[in-house]
Amino acid sequence: MVETVHITVTHQGLHPITSSVESIVSGSGLNSGLCTVFVRHTSASLLIQENADPSAKHDLERWLNRLVPENDQIYTHTSEGPDDMPAHIKSTLTATSLSIPIINSALGLGVWQGIYLWEHRHAQTIREVLVHVGH
Amino acid sequence: MVETVHITVTHQGLHPITSSVESIVSGSGLNSGLCTVFVRHTSASLLIQENADPSAKHDLERWLNRLVPENDQIYTHTSEGPDDMPAHIKSTLTATSLSIPIINSALGLGVWQGIYLWEHRHAQTIREVLVHVGH
Amino acid sequence: MVETVHITVTHQGLHPITSSVESIVSGSGLNSGLCTVFVRHTSASLLIQENADPSAKHDLERWLNRLVPENDQIYTHTSEGPDDMPAHIKSTLTATSLSIPIINSALGLGVWQGIYLWEHRHAQTIREVLVHVGH
Repeated sequence: MVETVHITVTHQGLHPITSSVESIVSGSGLNSGLCTVFVRHTSASLLIQENADPSAKHDLERWLNRLVPENDQIYTHTSEGPDDMPAHIKSTLTATSLSIPIINSALGLGVWQGIYLWEHRHAQTIREVLVHVGH
Repeated sequence: MVETVHITVTHQGLHPITSSVESIVSGSGLNSGLCTVFVRHTSASLLIQENADPSAKHDLERWLNRLVPENDQIYTHTSEGPDDMPAHIKSTLTATSLSIPIINSALGLGVWQGIYLWEHRHAQTIREVLVHVGH
Repeated sequence: MVETVHITVTHQGLHPITSSVESIVSGSGLNSGLCTVFVRHTSASLLIQENADPSAKHDLERWLNRLVPENDQIYTHTSEGPDDMPAHIKSTLTATSLSIPIINSALGLGVWQGIYLWEHRHAQTIREVLVHVGH
């Protein structure tokens, strides 16, 4: 079973999607299995990270922005704006797909784990994520 | 169902494999499911990235080569040549496995997404990729 | 089928878990299928890398420690110790889930590939990994 989730993003950074994915798993009625999340873009990615203290997410975003800055002289692919090539690199360094076992009819995430769509561009847009659930 | 794809690589960089993976998905006859791609090497990796403008791929390769240069004084594992340890690090920062939902009997890739084998060494060789297709 | 593996870690670095995962695959009796490994933490991650020369693992750990050092002035999330924020960043740059096709009743790893839990903190602890096996 594959379902599509649409996520409206209004800014660069981590957008929580755990509850959207969890509700698809619940709806599947599966007690045990595997849930795979896939982002259909090359300038946004997926991440499982700390869901509690916002300072961890904030530091993560700042660290990656420093590692992959805009306006680096190495970029030749600049026609789509200064945030485009950094977005491709950031999505390369993080995940396009994530698979999470289903146990007791729920995502088998650890206590502190949340699933995020990581938007790497600045403009408001709608992102598509596919969620597959199987035995 | 698991099939093996052999890819002859002649140089470092991104080698497109989308059509090879897509034909295995077609051949499976599955309308909906999950396709997982796995590279059987530690100095090559997998990537889903922009399939259109070649300048994006070019910048990505140049950026990663700058982050993980050859002949870094930190390396002690140098017996297999100057491109060996950077290859292990680059494959660590990218993907060994990727899972893509199957929808309407095809890979559920976004419009701009292509699947690539990223060869991190210079010499010509043959790489093996496993493709699993399931419900 | 989902099983839980507990791994006692006593220090930062790569801990081999291939044999634990392989024995779950053997026990499943599946000839062909897919095995997915998932780590339930945000300061430890998963890696498939060279299983032979220890110098490759050693260089990899040193390289990542240099890229993501402790006590970076950019961090504000410091209440859990100097190794906490670097651990979140390192796990972001590596894998939370890995999927490996099963062929001939065994993991389809390449000859030189081993599966590792990469512990990013210093203290002794017990880590949980979920292993899903399916058709």
